[in-house]
Amino acid sequence: MDNRHRYCVIMCGGIGSRFWPYSRTNRPKQFIDFLGTGRSLLQMSYDRILSIVPKENIIIVTNKLYAPLVKEQLPEIADTQILLEPARRNTAPCIAWAAYHIAALDPQASMIVTPSDHLITREKDFEQSVIKGFEFVEANDALLTLGIKPTRPETGYGYIQVGSKVTDDIDNVKTFTEKPSLELAKVFLESGEFFWNSGIFLWKADNIIKALKDNAPDVITTFERGAKLFGTEKEFNFIEENFESCVSISIDYAVMEKASNVYVETVTFGWNDLGTWSALRDNSPKNKDGNVAQNCELLSYNSTGNIFAIHGKKLVVVDGLKNYIVADAGDILLVCPIAEEQKIKQMVNDAKMKFGDKYL
Amino acid sequence: MDNRHRYCVIMCGGIGSRFWPYSRTNRPKQFIDFLGTGRSLLQMSYDRILSIVPKENIIIVTNKLYAPLVKEQLPEIADTQILLEPARRNTAPCIAWAAYHIAALDPQASMIVTPSDHLITREKDFEQSVIKGFEFVEANDALLTLGIKPTRPETGYGYIQVGSKVTDDIDNVKTFTEKPSLELAKVFLESGEFFWNSGIFLWKADNIIKALKDNAPDVITTFERGAKLFGTEKEFNFIEENFESCVSISIDYAVMEKASNVYVETVTFGWNDLGTWSALRDNSPKNKDGNVAQNCELLSYNSTGNIFAIHGKKLVVVDGLKNYIVADAGDILLVCPIAEEQKIKQMVNDAKMKFGDKYL
Repeated sequence: MDNRHRYCVIMCGGIGSRFWPYSRTNRPKQFIDFLGTGRSLLQMSYDRILSIVPKENIIIVTNKLYAPLVKEQLPEIADTQILLEPARRNTAPCIAWAAYHIAALDPQASMIVTPSDHLITREKDFEQSVIKGFEFVEANDALLTLGIKPTRPETGYGYIQVGSKVTDDIDNVKTFTEKPSLELAKVFLESGEFFWNSGIFLWKADNIIKALKDNAPDVITTFERGAKLFGTEKEFNFIEENFESCVSISIDYAVMEKASNVYVETVTFGWNDLGTWSALRDNSPKNKDGNVAQNCELLSYNSTGNIFAIHGKKLVVVDGLKNYIVADAGDILLVCPIAEEQKIKQMVNDAKMKFGDKYL
Repeated sequence: MDNRHRYCVIMCGGIGSRFWPYSRTNRPKQFIDFLGTGRSLLQMSYDRILSIVPKENIIIVTNKLYAPLVKEQLPEIADTQILLEPARRNTAPCIAWAAYHIAALDPQASMIVTPSDHLITREKDFEQSVIKGFEFVEANDALLTLGIKPTRPETGYGYIQVGSKVTDDIDNVKTFTEKPSLELAKVFLESGEFFWNSGIFLWKADNIIKALKDNAPDVITTFERGAKLFGTEKEFNFIEENFESCVSISIDYAVMEKASNVYVETVTFGWNDLGTWSALRDNSPKNKDGNVAQNCELLSYNSTGNIFAIHGKKLVVVDGLKNYIVADAGDILLVCPIAEEQKIKQMVNDAKMKFGDKYL
């Protein structure tokens, strides 16, 4: 298989604040061995793509804060494969930069863009779906997103409604719907027409740049100013000086919900965005009492459904605790019912108000 | 006041296993700033006695493991004032050694013996009671124990029943009763004849040696073998070679419950043996939510009646937890309902079975 013109962009600039304090500003979720496998989520994302694109075509986009973490966790990646954002500007500017960068390196480039902090299972299916996706976007002027067949009426995800069939697995996109109500999610699930938006995209680099020009002029202006600098030694200096002035917007809002050449490939691999403690618990191996113990020895009594997420080896002894998060991050200990995890954002704010930045 | 012949023996060789993991074999309860005052319980015991006996007459008896801790916490104490037990043998051998040691230094000596891990409040009352006690035992062939007026039907303490009055505050002892049932404790409380056994004793050194000879020959045999060595440079070597062969028995069983010259001084200072997490919680200052936060910053939501006992400064964020112990000792985290604290002993055993000695 000739995959020389295929590229992968792994986005890993997020701060993972929903998993505070297990995930901290200085080591967010994607850099943690979140599932206790011995590899961080970023490393797992990297491993997964190695059979699909050439190693030297893998581009990591992250915040410049995390350069040392990326180099530590992916020592085989060259410095030139790491794009360091000087500011957080959501996914559209991130993807725009990567597309300009790749198009300058290789005018024939096609690319997959993927988050670094999701769980994917059935990796053989993943590989086949991605290859099929590459073939489709290489043959068509298409922006392709991967859609996951829903297994439950999840209210935390975005949904894609399919339109007319293009191939067996690929459809036109009819609508995008962000986080529906439970009632609506149930209707979506039953209809068979709705798929979860995985946030994994494929396109030719040229085509996403064109789509940005057509649909997101306020994003593209920044990059067009330096269009001739990408692929030259001046690229990084240009980004350093201009990236921060770019608007902050997601690729979904900026392009996918507006463009007419958007397609969805419905895939069969297992996927979870690991966006909540509850999802992390449900996707992690449990001991016989039904607890998840990450990075700790556990002695539990009358305790079930808990997740113990610990930095640094520790013995945790627990009695009479059900469905709690117990997260220990060295200088912070969180004990909170899983059902109350949406309050963690407020807790982080309270901690900031009361103690400043030291516990973020 | 001439207090030259008055001595104090502070016993601090215990391992405080009920407070595991906050109290560990390598730093038991008495060496911890258990009440968050800035001074450990041992240091508080030392401070309290300074106004009563000359500093150089304070003798610390501890296990040899704890020599560095004693020297660190009481740097003003000379090495010769620290008696290091080569083995754990309960209070009778401990007190016997201290008595022989002191009697050899000063044949006229009177002494107070006190645990190092109790809470005492109203220290002015304590001082006056102890001085009155010294005067009594110096004038009489008496073994005196301090009895606390009970304020609740506590089932975890020993009780002393008073007999006939000797002075206003001092009575003959009629009976000793260990840990009564709740029913019995209520009767004791109502009767007005029963007092809590504080474990604080006063006597002349000669008189406790005599009482040991009369009542506890199997304890005294060991020490009589080396009677001439106490106060000489051979004392410590003798103890090193012979202490371990001594029977292990408490002074209450060995002497107090048998001797006929036992008296109780009923005192008015505040006292708690801090023998349980529940007692620690009840005797510690609480924040406005009714939680005790030791050595940590606390952000609490819907949480009350908990005790957070942490080694090393930490932010603890907690939601939906009521009446729990949360104890963090670096490499061990315990989360357990206070009502279940009697199970902690079993937990320590389980931890030992499963992981060996590293978490003791």
